[in-house]
This record gives sequence, C-alpha cells and structure tokens, in this order.
Amino acid sequence: MSMLSHSRSGDRVTLHSPTAMPQACGLLWNRRMLLHVNCRGFVTAQHMQPEPGKYAHAPFLEARTFMQPEQPLYAQHPGRFLFLRDEATGQAWSLPHEPMRRPVDSFRFEVGQAAIGWVLGVGELEVSLTVSLPVDATAELWTASLRNAGAAARRVSIYPCFSVGYMSWMNQSAAWDEGLLGLVARSVSPYQRLEDYPRIAQLKDWTALLADQRPDSWEARLEAFEGEGGWADPSALARPRLGRGEAHYETPIAALQYALELGAGEARQWRFVFAPARDAGELQQLRARLLAPGAFEREAQASRVYLEGGRGCLRQRSPDAELDAFANHWLPRQVWYHGDTNRLTTNPQTRNYLQDALGMVYVEPARAKQVFRAALSQQHEDGGMPDGVLLSPEAEQQYINQVPHMDHCVWLPVCVAPYLDETGDWAFLREVVTGRDGQGATVFERVCAAMRWLLRHRDARGLSLIAQGDWCDPMNMVGPAGRGVSGWLTIAAAHALRLWVEVARELGEAGVVDELGRGADELAASAQAHLWDGDWFARGISDAGRRFGVAADEEGRIFLNPQSWALLAGIADADQRERIVRAVDAQLDSPWGVMLLAPAFTRMHEHIGRVTQKFPGSAENGSIYNHAAAFWIHALYRAGEGERAWTQLRRMLPGPGADDLIRRGQLPVFIPNYYRGAVHQFPRTAGRSSQMFNTGTASWIYRILVEDLFGLRGSPRGLRVDPALPRSWSEARVERRFRGASFSVTYRRGSGPLAVTLDGVALDEPLVRDVEAGRRYALDVKLPA
Amino acid sequence: MSMLSHSRSGDRVTLHSPTAMPQACGLLWNRRMLLHVNCRGFVTAQHMQPEPGKYAHAPFLEARTFMQPEQPLYAQHPGRFLFLRDEATGQAWSLPHEPMRRPVDSFRFEVGQAAIGWVLGVGELEVSLTVSLPVDATAELWTASLRNAGAAARRVSIYPCFSVGYMSWMNQSAAWDEGLLGLVARSVSPYQRLEDYPRIAQLKDWTALLADQRPDSWEARLEAFEGEGGWADPSALARPRLGRGEAHYETPIAALQYALELGAGEARQWRFVFAPARDAGELQQLRARLLAPGAFEREAQASRVYLEGGRGCLRQRSPDAELDAFANHWLPRQVWYHGDTNRLTTNPQTRNYLQDALGMVYVEPARAKQVFRAALSQQHEDGGMPDGVLLSPEAEQQYINQVPHMDHCVWLPVCVAPYLDETGDWAFLREVVTGRDGQGATVFERVCAAMRWLLRHRDARGLSLIAQGDWCDPMNMVGPAGRGVSGWLTIAAAHALRLWVEVARELGEAGVVDELGRGADELAASAQAHLWDGDWFARGISDAGRRFGVAADEEGRIFLNPQSWALLAGIADADQRERIVRAVDAQLDSPWGVMLLAPAFTRMHEHIGRVTQKFPGSAENGSIYNHAAAFWIHALYRAGEGERAWTQLRRMLPGPGADDLIRRGQLPVFIPNYYRGAVHQFPRTAGRSSQMFNTGTASWIYRILVEDLFGLRGSPRGLRVDPALPRSWSEARVERRFRGASFSVTYRRGSGPLAVTLDGVALDEPLVRDVEAGRRYALDVKLPA
Repeated sequence: MSMLSHSRSGDRVTLHSPTAMPQACGLLWNRRMLLHVNCRGFVTAQHMQPEPGKYAHAPFLEARTFMQPEQPLYAQHPGRFLFLRDEATGQAWSLPHEPMRRPVDSFRFEVGQAAIGWVLGVGELEVSLTVSLPVDATAELWTASLRNAGAAARRVSIYPCFSVGYMSWMNQSAAWDEGLLGLVARSVSPYQRLEDYPRIAQLKDWTALLADQRPDSWEARLEAFEGEGGWADPSALARPRLGRGEAHYETPIAALQYALELGAGEARQWRFVFAPARDAGELQQLRARLLAPGAFEREAQASRVYLEGGRGCLRQRSPDAELDAFANHWLPRQVWYHGDTNRLTTNPQTRNYLQDALGMVYVEPARAKQVFRAALSQQHEDGGMPDGVLLSPEAEQQYINQVPHMDHCVWLPVCVAPYLDETGDWAFLREVVTGRDGQGATVFERVCAAMRWLLRHRDARGLSLIAQGDWCDPMNMVGPAGRGVSGWLTIAAAHALRLWVEVARELGEAGVVDELGRGADELAASAQAHLWDGDWFARGISDAGRRFGVAADEEGRIFLNPQSWALLAGIADADQRERIVRAVDAQLDSPWGVMLLAPAFTRMHEHIGRVTQKFPGSAENGSIYNHAAAFWIHALYRAGEGERAWTQLRRMLPGPGADDLIRRGQLPVFIPNYYRGAVHQFPRTAGRSSQMFNTGTASWIYRILVEDLFGLRGSPRGLRVDPALPRSWSEARVERRFRGASFSVTYRRGSGPLAVTLDGVALDEPLVRDVEAGRRYALDVKLPA
Repeated sequence: MSMLSHSRSGDRVTLHSPTAMPQACGLLWNRRMLLHVNCRGFVTAQHMQPEPGKYAHAPFLEARTFMQPEQPLYAQHPGRFLFLRDEATGQAWSLPHEPMRRPVDSFRFEVGQAAIGWVLGVGELEVSLTVSLPVDATAELWTASLRNAGAAARRVSIYPCFSVGYMSWMNQSAAWDEGLLGLVARSVSPYQRLEDYPRIAQLKDWTALLADQRPDSWEARLEAFEGEGGWADPSALARPRLGRGEAHYETPIAALQYALELGAGEARQWRFVFAPARDAGELQQLRARLLAPGAFEREAQASRVYLEGGRGCLRQRSPDAELDAFANHWLPRQVWYHGDTNRLTTNPQTRNYLQDALGMVYVEPARAKQVFRAALSQQHEDGGMPDGVLLSPEAEQQYINQVPHMDHCVWLPVCVAPYLDETGDWAFLREVVTGRDGQGATVFERVCAAMRWLLRHRDARGLSLIAQGDWCDPMNMVGPAGRGVSGWLTIAAAHALRLWVEVARELGEAGVVDELGRGADELAASAQAHLWDGDWFARGISDAGRRFGVAADEEGRIFLNPQSWALLAGIADADQRERIVRAVDAQLDSPWGVMLLAPAFTRMHEHIGRVTQKFPGSAENGSIYNHAAAFWIHALYRAGEGERAWTQLRRMLPGPGADDLIRRGQLPVFIPNYYRGAVHQFPRTAGRSSQMFNTGTASWIYRILVEDLFGLRGSPRGLRVDPALPRSWSEARVERRFRGASFSVTYRRGSGPLAVTLDGVALDEPLVRDVEAGRRYALDVKLPA
C-alpha cells in the first residue's frame, strides 16, 4: 500500500500518511453537533444551543460565521492531541501528528461511519485513538489505548491534550476538578446589551475533559504548557510532571498526564469525554451516563442503530468497487445527515431544505413529507416562498437568507414530484396546510400558487425577475432595481411548471394543466426569444439591459445551469441540445467535473455583482460546483446522454488514483460542495476539495444512481425500469427498496433491446405495476449491447 | 544591566530580554492607525477606514470587536519577523524572537517616541530592525540593517517575513509584483447584503510589502513557506531560495529573501513599506512617496514635529528619575494620543471623549474646547448627553454606546471647569452652540441644562437613577426597570453641580448658584441619608430595593468610586473621611494600587449584573482600574492626604524593580487601563498589566502632576501655587507653560510655612496674578518641613 493512497475495508476508509493530504478529514454528527476530524489531529466542532456554537476555540477571538469552505489549518488550530513521552529517553511525540509533527513509524487514519480514529506505531509502542459521538448528547467520546509490543518494559507518559482556546474576553478560567475527575474550563459568553442576557445565560459556556481514570498530573493554562518551547515543542513535556496549573483569564487548555510502566505485551486503555456544559451538574450527569462501565459500547450500538435509519433504498454491486463502497455506505449517510439534522441550522435556505428532503425521499420518505409540509406552512400569502424556513419560534433569518432570492418556488415541484413518484402518496396533495396567514389550502393548491407566483414575477418579455439572486450564483447586482432577469430562473420555472403540469394531469386537474402548461410554454418561448445566444442560453439580463453569460463576454461567458435545465425542461431543440453539449464540453469540462461558469471572473463586474468578487475557481465563481454538476449529469441522463453522464458522475467522486486524491485532498467519505475550478486560469489549485460536507449534491447524486444509472424510478403506475449503465459494465446487481417492497435486480449486457423479466416472467413493458409492500421481487434486466 | 530589567536613555526605554516580559510592547500611532509592537515581534495594527480595520490578520477568521485587554499571544499571532540564515551552516534564526524562538547572543528591544526597534547580536552579526509611521499615511516604515562585525566574510540570507493572514473567505491571493517591487496580497472584504457594497468597495482590502531593493526570491503562500517544518521551523528556510509561490485563495504571507555575502566590517541596509491599499495605484503612490531617497528621514522629522505638539505644559526634574522620564516623555504623549486621535474610534463614549479633552487642556487647550463644543452640539433637547459622540455623519453608536448609561452629564463640569481654570477662557461659556434640535444655547446654558437633567433623573429619595450603567461599572441589572439608583452617580452629580456652582458664581449667575447649589445639597443629603453604610458609601440600590457595596455583602462589599468622589465633593465629614480612608486602605489597597471594588465577584449577582460576570480581578471586576485609582489619588491630594496620594501615585507607575516589572509585564511607556486586581483572591495574576493604551487615566495623572503634586493650578485670578511634594523629596524643579507664559519653578524644603517668591519678590499669597502671555516667570517655592 502506497503511503500516498487510501484504502478501504467495508465501510471504513483509511489514510496511510498524515502529510499526503493534510486537509483530509472525516465527519461525525448527531442531531446536536457536528465534528470535522482532520487526519493530523485538528478538529472543528459545532454544536447547537440552539444556534451553532463552539466549545473548543482558536487561541483568539473568532468571528461567528457560517461554515466556510477550504478552512485553513494553522499551528494552533483547535485539535485533540495525545502527546507521548518516553521517560527513559525524554523523547516526545504528538499524536496523531500535530503540533510537533514528529514522524512516527506507522500511521493509519481510519474513518468509519460512526467512529474515526488513528492506529499509530511509535517504535514498539502501538497507540490508538478513537472518537465517536453519543446519539443524543453533546459530547465527544474518546478512547486512547497503548500497547507495548516490545520485549522490554517501557516507562512512558501519555498526555491527552485537548484545545479549549480563547473562550471569552468577559470571563474564562480552567482548573482540575477532583470531584468531576476532569479538567473544567469555565467561561461567560460576552455580551453588552441587557436584552441579550437571557439567551447568553442559557449557553453551555463550560468545556470539560472528563477522564475515567485519575491522571498523575494536569495543566489548565496553555502558556504554562507551551513555555518557551512553544506549541511546536511544549516545554511542559520536558519536565517529569505537568505543573497542575490553573488558568485565570488566561487561555485554557485541557492537558492530562498519565505516567505508567508498561510491561512487555501489556496494554492500557483510557476513556475521556470532551464536552460543553452549562454547569457542574450537567457535567456530573454526562460523567454518570457516559463514563459508566459499558457506556461507550452502549453509545456505539445506539449510533449504529441511528445510522441504519439512513441506509437508503439502494444497495449496489457493480464492476466499480469504489463507486459501490461510496454509494452503499457514504452517500446515503451524507443524505441522511442533511435530511435528519437540517444541516444543523435553525433557518435552512428554502431551496436547501427542500432538496435535502428530496434526498430523504429515498431514505425516509415520511421525513421528506414533513419538510414539504413545514415549508408550505411558511409560504407567503401571495404564493411566494420565504428565503429560509424557520425551524423554531426563536429562529431568525440569518446571513444570505436576508437577501431576496427569486428561485425558492421552483424547488417545490422539483422535490415534491419525485416524492410522489417514489411513494405513490398522491393523497398528500389533498392534505390541507395552514399557511403563514392562518388560511388553509391543500398541498396541491399551495404548489400551484407558488407556480403562479413564478409566472407573476416576470418582466414584459416574459423572463423571470432575479432581484438580488437565485440558485448557485450570488448575483446581487443583476436585478436589484427590479428589472434584471435570470436566464436560468426563466428556464427553471418552465421546468418546474412542466413537472407540476404532469402532476396536475395525474390528478385530473385539467384547468391547472391548461393554465400552467401555457405558462410553461410562454416561459420556454421567452427563453428562446431572448436568451438563446447561438450555442447556449444566456445567464441573464441586467437592470440596465445588458445580457451576460454570452459569447461576447470575456469572463463568465457560459454558465452551466441554464444549459442543464434547458435540457431537463425540454426547451432546447435537438440542434440546440447538441450545441449546448458541445459548448459545455469545450468550455466547462475539466478532469474533475464541469465548472459552474467559465472563464471565472477575475475582477468586479458591476452588472453582475457579488459572484464576480469571489476568488476565481472558488465557491460559485467557476468552481466545479457539485450540486450544479449533478444537475448536468441528471440532465444528460434524461437527455439520453448516458455515457457522457457516466463520465461526469465518475469524475465527481474521487477515483482510486493517488495523484488525483492528493490534488483534491478529499477522502471518499463524502462529496464536497465544490472542487476548485478555473482549471485553465489557475491550474495548480484546480480540483481541490472545499472539504464542505453541506451540499445538495448528495441528494441529487443519490437520486441519479437510483433513477438514472440503475433506472429504477417510481411512477404513478409502478416501478419503471430504464437503466443507463455505462458501456464498460457488463453486469451489476442492486437491491432496491420501493414502496415497502424489495427488488433484487440483476443487470446483464445482452444483444437485443432492453428486456426485463419479473420473477422469471418477461414484462411487456419495463414497468412493475401494483407493487405490494412487503413483497420481494426479482428483476432481471437485459441491457442492450 | 540585568537581563530581567529595562533601562532608559532619555526618551527611550530598552528591554534586554525577549522572555522576561513576553507581553511587553510599545505603541506608535498617527491619526489613521495604531501599531502595538510586542517585544517578540508580534504586531497588532489597526487603521481607520473609517471604522477600525486590519491589514495583517490572524490565520483564521477573526471577530470584529473593540480592543480587548490582555490579548493573548499565540504561535501564529500576526507579526513582522526577519529570518536570518547562515548559508555556510544552514542555521536559521527568527528575529527578534518569534516564531522560532532560537536564542540570540544579545537582544535589545528599544521603544522610542516615534520609532520602535531591536538591536540584536547573532554571533558576530549585528542586526537591527526599526519601525516608524508616517504622520499622515497608513503605512509602516521598516528598516533592517545587518553588519558583519567579524573578521571573515559571511554568506547569509535575510528574510523579511510579514504576516498577512486570513484576509477574506470571499477572495484572497498574493503574488510578487515586479512593477511595484513588492509582494502584494489582494482580497475582497466579504459581504452579503447589497446595501453593504458601497462601504465595502471603499475599503483598503490589499496588503503589500514594498521593498527598496529587489529580493532574490520571495514566497506569498504561508503553507509553502511553512512546509512540514511548520511555523516554528519553516521548511522554506532549508532550501537555497524561496519558491516564488503565489497564494490563490490560500493564506498569504509576505516573505522576501535577500541572499548576500557580507565582508568583514561590511554593512547593508534595506527599507520596506508595509501597508494596506485599495489598489495598485495607491501602492504606486505609497512607494513613490515613502521609498524615495530620504523619505524615511523626512517622515521621521515630521513625526518629531507631530509629537512635539503633544509635549504638554510641564517639564519636571525631581529626585525620582523614573517618574521624571515617564512624566516628561511618555505621559503627555499618551494624553496627546487620546486627544489627537479620539482613540481611533468614530463614536467615542461621551465620558471618554470629554476626559480625553481634559488631558488636552494641559497640552493643546484649543482642541479641548473643540471637543466640548462638539459634545454639546449633540446634547439632547432635554439636556441629557448621548452615550457616544458621533465624529462623522456616517458614524454610528457601537458596542457599549448602545446601552443606556446615566453619567455622561457629570463629565461636563468635571472637564470644562479645569479648562476654564487653565485657560481663563471664560468667554467660551457665552459661546452659542447649536444642539441636535437646531436650537442655539450658550455653553453655560447647556451645561446648566445637563445639571438639571441630572437633578431630574432621581428617585423619590433624591438618589440618581442608574438605568443600565454608569462609569467604570457595567451594572446592567441594577436599574433597568427604572427604579435602581447609583451611589456613585448621586455623589458624582453633587460634585459636578458644586463645580458648576463655582463657575456660575464666577459669572455672577446668582440664580444658577442658588438653584444648583440647592440641588447639590439635596444630593449630598440624600447620599448621607440612604448610602452611608457606617464606614463607607454604598455603591447603589437595585430595582428591588437591595443595597449593595455595603459591609453586609460578601462580594463587592466596597467600591472605590463613591468614596473618592465623596471626598472630592466634600460630602464626607471629617469622621467619615477618616473611616473611608481607613476602609479603602484596609480593603482595596494593593502593592500595585487601589482596586475598584473588593472582594471581586466570583459569581453572577443578578441584582448587579454584567460586572459580576467578568473575571475576578480583570477589567471592572475588582481590577486596579487606573482611571478610578487616579480619582482616588486626586481626591486624596484635594483632601490634604498628600503622602498617601503619593504612595498610590508611585504604585500606579512601574518602578525600577525587575520583579515588579515582570509581574506587570508593562514597560514604562504608557499607563495601561488596568492592572489585574483581586489580589487576595488571585494573587498569582495580581498586578498584571492589561497592555491597553486607551484609558482616561493619562489625562487625570497628568492633571494630578501639574495641579496636585506640583500644585501649579490655574484659577480665575491666576496661577495658584499649592504643591504637595512627597516628604522624601527635598527639592525639585519644573517648567510650566500657563496661559502662554513660562514658569520656571524651584521647590526647596524649608522650615516654616509655604512661601513663594516670584522673580525674587515674596508673594503675600501663593498666587501669581495677571499672567502675561509670552513672559517668563521664575518662582521659588519654599516647602514646609
């Protein structure tokens, strides 16, 4: 096994070097917190109280902000470290790697579904470190173990050393607490206005490292731990025992020392709980619950049960083992994270909230339905959807949700229609949802109202107004005056309306079919009349009437989204489709996927706005924005371009090549929200992973696997079989859950046209009707050559 | 000279070790920026655009906040470093100390008035580093020089390496610019709301290190500079040349390399400008102006002229050389900083703004007058003063100015009366100032209105309402319901009124004398009736009627301010004065001065509020808050307790003892806003300096030196001589500027009562009448034995 690559074993991904991919990380979460565990020992933790907060801080006052991509690591980034000192030689290491960065003899960073850890060899000492989370508490569960594989006894000290950092300019301190058997850092969140006090007073302002065994010594003051040796070579490790120091308005650290003699073959294990808390009572409860005998094991079992809820509707076995492992274990887990936790925000963007529910359609459809209900209950009286959905009475619209975007209505049909296809739950459409105004209306009526809102918010040319933005592109200066329009939104609205027309048709709502059908046709015609640029669709037209995303532009010449959706909406004719595909291939393709736009903006364009100020290749400015790339893949599949779609799908997910991995810095345990783009402008950094776990991509890629690649798509009449396996595959097998039934599906490359056999009987069309819950079906799919 | 101590030479303070006082720092400023230069090479820089901003950042997203005391240093704190590598041995050092922390052979950190630098010996290499500021540009001027004092030629590389840090999640990059001859880091300040764009677009978002000589190589990417060696031992230094890397959405650094051979006795010098800018044009201008031949010298001369404006009205020569040096060079400089820059804020707290002007009374009285005018022009219609004074039309009330405080009116007489005494400018009182409501009223009328506001904002007992706070004590829960009262404010209002009564009497405004005199007496009587606790005055009474700052309290039993002001206001009778002095001595005194309150709060007291949540001994919770301690000193002097006052005055300023210095971590170049208190509760950290340069203390201590210690106080009739030199002094001399005249004053200990001779002629009373501008006076003061 090369030191540069990773390996898999079942649902575990292992990295064999701390230096090959310094940014590589795994993630753990429960409904209260998220842990971002870097291979070198850095950890970023967020917990909900109810807004996202931290309990292990940087060594200075951090900005409170939303999660950022490509977060830089730095010397004193918060982490969880285990220092090790050989008492005979005085030599010391920091495990897994930071901050001393002394090489060890073997290194394994193991990312599992419910636990992340390291197995390290330091001479003949074997050290392992593992972290997991309880299912329903805010706490990290750490296990450290040490084994002497040598023939001679060894005297060593281990020092679990967890960052606490700069907690508060108002009040911070830390000291060992003998009663709690833990190092407890106390603080008071700073505030100035009296009206903030009630909220502040509820925060878990303390951070504690609780131990299952009493340490021989400890240190609570960072400065004392570091000494003149500094963080890279802490002076405290040069002394026999830690100084038992306390931090008084000084930066805290939680460092414990266990000094021991380990006989030949002997092993020791320690358990720790690292957690925020409001007070000593809460810590006492945490200790009683989580450090009791067998507690870690009980929590691990509970985590397995929890994660099982997110296993999804598909198990695949294909010639592509990497893809299988990712799709069977990691992708539904990422879908489940989004759908189960709402990304750990109190005010998800409406489009994110709905698309995360789309993922849940294939994992736990009842939860998806709850989301649709909740979102519609916050619909405005005029049919418009809010920028964010507030998940509690105290929640407020934050950050980007304060900026008016015009696309939220689009996502209702886009997400609800697949729910209907998957579940057959057409009755949901007749369910009455009370809106913001206290008025009741059915789900169907509400989505229709949203469609009418889209039709009303157009200009005289029939193009959709953009206000200060829509999906994927923070274009805050295209339409603030109320005149600028969005090419993508015009096309997307047509797509949304056409999806809803199909639903209305199914319901027999002829009036709506007619009304919305006409609206969709108008949108399509407007797009054709004003947005077609000869080889692709323009991205929009500014308040001042300037068209952009067109061949005449030097930067931002072509945008991906209008093209994907034009294919999806059936707006593009055959010639246009061909031209679009050619243009995307020529201008947006890259070894890591298709870029959102190109060339990336390198300077401010005041008729477009914010996106043009982003760094070229990053976030929305020409990155390989996987969420949008997923739509391109989906559109290609739906347009019959299966091979081209497969190429793109495969590019999005890290392949087995070490070089590719290192370029991306992305372990194959989740799809990041983007890979860096601007591949021709900034080739050195192109392909690099954002390391951001939050992304609508997961839902769409899961849907693409289920419905497009394996072609097992629900429909009003049953399960439709329409696969698009890559030519290179001669066979594949999947298990598909659908409406309570189980389908064992075998694909084999044949010679004639597609032929499907159900339980040994050939079907006259590739559709399984009248699916019975609880029944097992066996499908044999013979693929065309 | 001990390695642990500092030394002085004229107006320069030198520290001889980087480890004895790791927090020790000097400060430079101009009207656009402030530079906080730590002895180890860390630098914190703020500049106004127009709100305070940064151009050298932490390696992570920092919170935007007001200046914090006791800011922790940490491994990657922003700094300006010079790495040095011996090309023959490969050995490397980081100068002056961070981040490699390798000891050098000699170390001098030299803090001057207009420049700060280091002189370092690394073997036979002499290295010096100096920084200064231009008077009217935002830029740091750095000079590095290297001399080979050895007998053999040496091949070395030097690497100026300046932190740029994490600039923006929106856009950041850095690269060498051959045209500018500088390493330029570009960024775009992040924003989300369109309405923030016009402001954002004006910011100096770039940071550049411009050089006077082309380097041999450079590195713009922090990660590439560090390599696996990390910040503590950068890998880039192990290679012959830096990698000429660029940062693309990666954390920038500005590192240059000059490789050279230095013959025996040979010396080289380099100049650098480190500055923020809006664009390349602005950098081109900076380079043309600041890197032209002789430019640094011209700027240095301009700085000397600028600082000369703040030399103050007193030059002293006493038996206490430390005090003389501080009072002659550093104290008026600190006063000048406050008065000239308004603490580099756009919305100074009204009490700060007025007291900073009080200091200017003794430095540049015309500026003080402008401040009084500006503050009164923002007076509310009802006579109240705003929480902050807005210095520009765009300025907004920020932070604590959004919390209603009740004391702002008090500071008008407290600061205006000394202005009148110093200048004799009684005409100012008849000047009409237009208020917020567009109405004109004279200065005298406006201050009278403020006094009436104080009288109106009392409860039925005649005690002053506190709302959510007053001076020094963030007590946001004493009076939010509108009932709680402040003991200090009641007493301070009496003092303010009595000061204003004296002014009114001088003006012959009998009605006001009578009205405000009665008001003051009522306040005094109410204080006596409701606040005297037997040995001191209580701090207040909460909304719920709970008295606090009284003997029955376990924490916060006694507060300093009510006691100081009771002496000043003449409220305390002789017996009370004696009891107060005894109580303060017994409960608040410490080796570093008197504490603001004691015992410091160690837990939340909900009838008091925010101050009880602060860390014990820090900021306002029982610290030795020098601003308040200065009032105690002032009050002692005015109460005839000169020896006691002198003891406290001397404690506030660092003495010559190395141990004391190290405890405080404070170089004698400014008075910090506090020393840590809670001396009995937290003895380890007691006395430690906050390192905060912003404090009203400077004004008051300057006034105390001029008016109380040397007793040269203005009065309506001339210069009054009423010194209180410590008994240990047998003689002293001062030069005093007063109303345009110069006074050479000689003090000598005599035998009889105080006797003053003017130009050889004995005065019948110690008062110089009819002072003539431009004239030189010689005063001989014979002190009582």
